[in-house]
Amino acid sequence: MIPTVATRKPRGAYAKTAGRRREILEAGMDVFATNGFRSGSIREIAEVVGISQAGLLHHFANKNELLAGVLELRDDRATEYVDLSAPASIDTIRGFVRLIDYNAHQVPGLVELHCVLSAEATSPEHPAHEYFVRRYAWVLSFLTAAFQAVQDAGQLAAGVSPGSAARGMIAMSDGLQVQWLLDRDTVDMAQEIRNYLRPLLAVEL
Amino acid sequence: MIPTVATRKPRGAYAKTAGRRREILEAGMDVFATNGFRSGSIREIAEVVGISQAGLLHHFANKNELLAGVLELRDDRATEYVDLSAPASIDTIRGFVRLIDYNAHQVPGLVELHCVLSAEATSPEHPAHEYFVRRYAWVLSFLTAAFQAVQDAGQLAAGVSPGSAARGMIAMSDGLQVQWLLDRDTVDMAQEIRNYLRPLLAVEL
Repeated sequence: MIPTVATRKPRGAYAKTAGRRREILEAGMDVFATNGFRSGSIREIAEVVGISQAGLLHHFANKNELLAGVLELRDDRATEYVDLSAPASIDTIRGFVRLIDYNAHQVPGLVELHCVLSAEATSPEHPAHEYFVRRYAWVLSFLTAAFQAVQDAGQLAAGVSPGSAARGMIAMSDGLQVQWLLDRDTVDMAQEIRNYLRPLLAVEL
Repeated sequence: MIPTVATRKPRGAYAKTAGRRREILEAGMDVFATNGFRSGSIREIAEVVGISQAGLLHHFANKNELLAGVLELRDDRATEYVDLSAPASIDTIRGFVRLIDYNAHQVPGLVELHCVLSAEATSPEHPAHEYFVRRYAWVLSFLTAAFQAVQDAGQLAAGVSPGSAARGMIAMSDGLQVQWLLDRDTVDMAQEIRNYLRPLLAVEL
């Protein structure tokens, strides 16, 4: 299991070396996105940053800690697009669609990372397995609440279940990533997500 | 790139050692499904079969050849559920849904394999990259023809594009695999695919 944020690093040390930590996390993101977590190596990540392995291990005790940091950085970026503090509504759904569009156009490396890591981590032995189990459960419950609010506002098509719409939206996003990574010029992920949502909604997105 | 079937093995030799080859392919499927192709090793696969690495390499010259065989075996199984020779129709769609249900209940290892390999192979350097690019293009064109036939028969809901429905159905299947592998007791992939298709169709599935 990957360590939680709280056990990772005292505040002072974090602040002092934040810049270098960030560089390592960005490099880790690239390397894990290209090679997967299992094949990505501390050596390779250190090389990308231009430091020694010992230098890297000063910031992250091992590959699992580095992975935890990379996933945290990814989640931080996501919350810039989806306002977690606002009440659930159709705007939550709209935020997710914007996030998908942003990821494809601005941070394709994050799409690669999520695609490879989420697949690898389905294996119970993977160090990020528990993280992904929790994360998917959380996103499902968050999006279900959003579709429930949409239904309460009379904006969901008849016969659509909020839970199933939420699960479908997550599946559609994940699945489109594979197709997009295989054929970036043809696939428009955000447009396909809108096509998915159109018959489920009684309002325009 | 993975080698094509024609270049792999003369017929006579194939027939003579078909049983052992099959055992190796089944073991390869398991190991690649659990560890991914990159981390899965010839050594580990040989151990599962109970033969030496040299013995394994007598049947498959290298890991890429073994991967080609595993993917071929996977595709052979799929065609038992989807009749490729029948004219495209709503029955093509029904066959895919049955295949998804069968995979989840009978060959979960194949679901793991597809999930991890398709994600890994989005990287252009992966030996199965070209295979997956071709395979997704082929499945897309096959399913688009099916939804087109459904539309021609007046069975597609108004405003639905056959190409987008086909792409969505593939994405939904791929994405649901991740959720199912993370939570097999809760997720019913075939039911969620039916939920996806219901608003797109003017007939019962």
